[in-house]
Amino acid sequence: MKELDIKGKLAKKASSFIARMSSDGKRSALREIARLLEEKYETILNANSKDLAEAEKNNISGPLTDRLRLDIGRISSMAGGIRQIALLDDPVGEVLNMKRRPNGLLIGQVRVPIGVIGIIYEARPNVTADASGLCLMAGNAVLLRGGREAINSNIAIVGIINEALSASGVPAGAVQLVENTDRESALGMMKLNRYLDLLIPRGGGGLIRTVVENSTVPVVETGVGNCHAYVDRSADPVMAANIIINAKTQRPGVCNAIETLLVHRSIAGSFLPEICERLHRHKVEIRGDETVTGLVSSAVQATEEDWYTEYLDLKLAVRVVDSTDQAIEHINTYGSGHSETIITESYTNSQKFLAEVDSAAVYVNASTRFTDGFEFGFGAEIGISTQKLHARGPMGLRELTSTKYVIYGQGQVR
Amino acid sequence: MKELDIKGKLAKKASSFIARMSSDGKRSALREIARLLEEKYETILNANSKDLAEAEKNNISGPLTDRLRLDIGRISSMAGGIRQIALLDDPVGEVLNMKRRPNGLLIGQVRVPIGVIGIIYEARPNVTADASGLCLMAGNAVLLRGGREAINSNIAIVGIINEALSASGVPAGAVQLVENTDRESALGMMKLNRYLDLLIPRGGGGLIRTVVENSTVPVVETGVGNCHAYVDRSADPVMAANIIINAKTQRPGVCNAIETLLVHRSIAGSFLPEICERLHRHKVEIRGDETVTGLVSSAVQATEEDWYTEYLDLKLAVRVVDSTDQAIEHINTYGSGHSETIITESYTNSQKFLAEVDSAAVYVNASTRFTDGFEFGFGAEIGISTQKLHARGPMGLRELTSTKYVIYGQGQVR
Repeated sequence: MKELDIKGKLAKKASSFIARMSSDGKRSALREIARLLEEKYETILNANSKDLAEAEKNNISGPLTDRLRLDIGRISSMAGGIRQIALLDDPVGEVLNMKRRPNGLLIGQVRVPIGVIGIIYEARPNVTADASGLCLMAGNAVLLRGGREAINSNIAIVGIINEALSASGVPAGAVQLVENTDRESALGMMKLNRYLDLLIPRGGGGLIRTVVENSTVPVVETGVGNCHAYVDRSADPVMAANIIINAKTQRPGVCNAIETLLVHRSIAGSFLPEICERLHRHKVEIRGDETVTGLVSSAVQATEEDWYTEYLDLKLAVRVVDSTDQAIEHINTYGSGHSETIITESYTNSQKFLAEVDSAAVYVNASTRFTDGFEFGFGAEIGISTQKLHARGPMGLRELTSTKYVIYGQGQVR
Repeated sequence: MKELDIKGKLAKKASSFIARMSSDGKRSALREIARLLEEKYETILNANSKDLAEAEKNNISGPLTDRLRLDIGRISSMAGGIRQIALLDDPVGEVLNMKRRPNGLLIGQVRVPIGVIGIIYEARPNVTADASGLCLMAGNAVLLRGGREAINSNIAIVGIINEALSASGVPAGAVQLVENTDRESALGMMKLNRYLDLLIPRGGGGLIRTVVENSTVPVVETGVGNCHAYVDRSADPVMAANIIINAKTQRPGVCNAIETLLVHRSIAGSFLPEICERLHRHKVEIRGDETVTGLVSSAVQATEEDWYTEYLDLKLAVRVVDSTDQAIEHINTYGSGHSETIITESYTNSQKFLAEVDSAAVYVNASTRFTDGFEFGFGAEIGISTQKLHARGPMGLRELTSTKYVIYGQGQVR
């Protein structure tokens, strides 16, 4: 894969320059990118209309076309996102845990950029700008491999980013797009250990599985969210209903929306008919276990498969459980380790749920929809990690860095 | 691979128990392991003598046999290592960065165990005890896959560990040995994503490359150390010589020993003949560039390959450079990202070296031999990570944990 080799090498070279840029230098380069994206919006829209025409020709579905479509508002919010990243604290250079050892060595950890980050993503061209901004602000070079559907938009956006970077004195290679969008270029990225320090897939479950199964480059797995709400016996039913309606219906297509509702048996008879009626009014289809179908006439029978499914749609699996333990076991068995919430007034059960649910974000009495870099106060995010290594949960700038040990000596030997 | 499936499943099950054990419970289980290892030393020595007889039959080399051999002293130091781990701070449960958000949500990160850790290692049976102790103290289950050469010793040690764990009320599955030692069992571990959260290879470069290239389980790469010392123009020559002799000869077979010496051109004529004479007295073979072979009669010509090589032996590659920049470039090109040191009296060059060398541990005026969990004050280590994700440098208990976000709400929705 010649393109990958050339661009990988260039990225590696550029990464050592970006790693040493001052915070101010990075901020002004990002502001220049934002300015130029807005100034050259017509270039982007022209390219985008080619992608849209191609999508229409290929009978691509409505939701995908919607994710693909750019307009002035979306370009402006892309630029706004980059300006916001330029305002964040620069994590690079932070010194952690510096201590003098008994032998006089002064040992500490310094936060440093990771190096070259590869991103494989699907149809949204806004990822091109977002991911570039985040990687740059954390001092990394980035190699982007977007989907075929957005190739013209991506070429235009990366072209503008590079124009801005060049005007800011940043060498070529800091932000590059892999223009070959066939399967081989994605697989090639997954084996590009020589140049890539980290690979982040952003997209649906299929993409993420392919990357995890094939990549020899270290991966941070993001995004698959089979999230749960558990309504405990002691829950405030009004609070529980509000949280469930919010977590399921406010934006059903995102990873932090709930896909399964668990309800304690002792309140199922009173709580379920009402909440299902409310969900029904929001056009949510209920797939329940036998107790649920017995209580709710509109519910259809759930299969084992439903407990594993991230619908990303107005569908909700519902199960009645006998205890907090059983709810936790269900979540740890079927969940994807993203976000789960318990609604309860029981101190003991809330602590048990927080301690024993093995997910990136575990809530008491709040909607799972808050699992998000902005809501967590990071200012931005590159994705939500559902793995346990390196970073877990929303990944902001800090999660795009590594550390190294620095040791100040006075001639010490062992 | 039936054995892996059965043991993986059991490990996963046990991991949720260990994750919830109190610090005191873990400490007393570890102390029981230490006690029983010493009490049953004859069982271990009998098993070990079988491995040694097998090694002799197969004409296995002296150094490998030495790594394999146990005696009362080594068993007692194994037990001592476990007792030391039992004294360390328990990282599990630490709460990081807890903050109240403007909407009232209280969001923090809690340090949690990783889950199930796989270790693939070679001939040293002491790794069996060390790795088990570290993984357990950090709340993880461990699946061990040692080398064929040590299989009888490993079965004996793991048997005793399990006897101690069972007496301490820890369920089976916390520490298990994969008894099938063929290549397939190692490859099977590398694909055991269903049960393993992390895979750590401990051994030579060949093993580590195989794991990195084949594993779909997240890996922490450890141990390959092509380390450098750079003697700057302004170095104190006595300090420089002491550091070089120490870093090369004190224990040449370990990963934090230096393999290449870089010397500034302006001091090469005065410094090199003397240091090479001293190294020669320590039986170190010098492989130098043209300047070096011109100055030092015993030096042989280095090839490009030498700059990449981790000798793990009494050999040293030596190169003359024109500047700190060139030294840094050499290290970042040929090094393995482990440990490097500059010997200098120049403030500017020391800061430049610390900032620009891209390695896990970067020293000024000290021997690279200090890159070690004990020397860094962690009390113990599972290995030294040379990758940038998750952990970099010596990995102690903290590096065997992950985090999760816990969020306390009062009914918040978006």
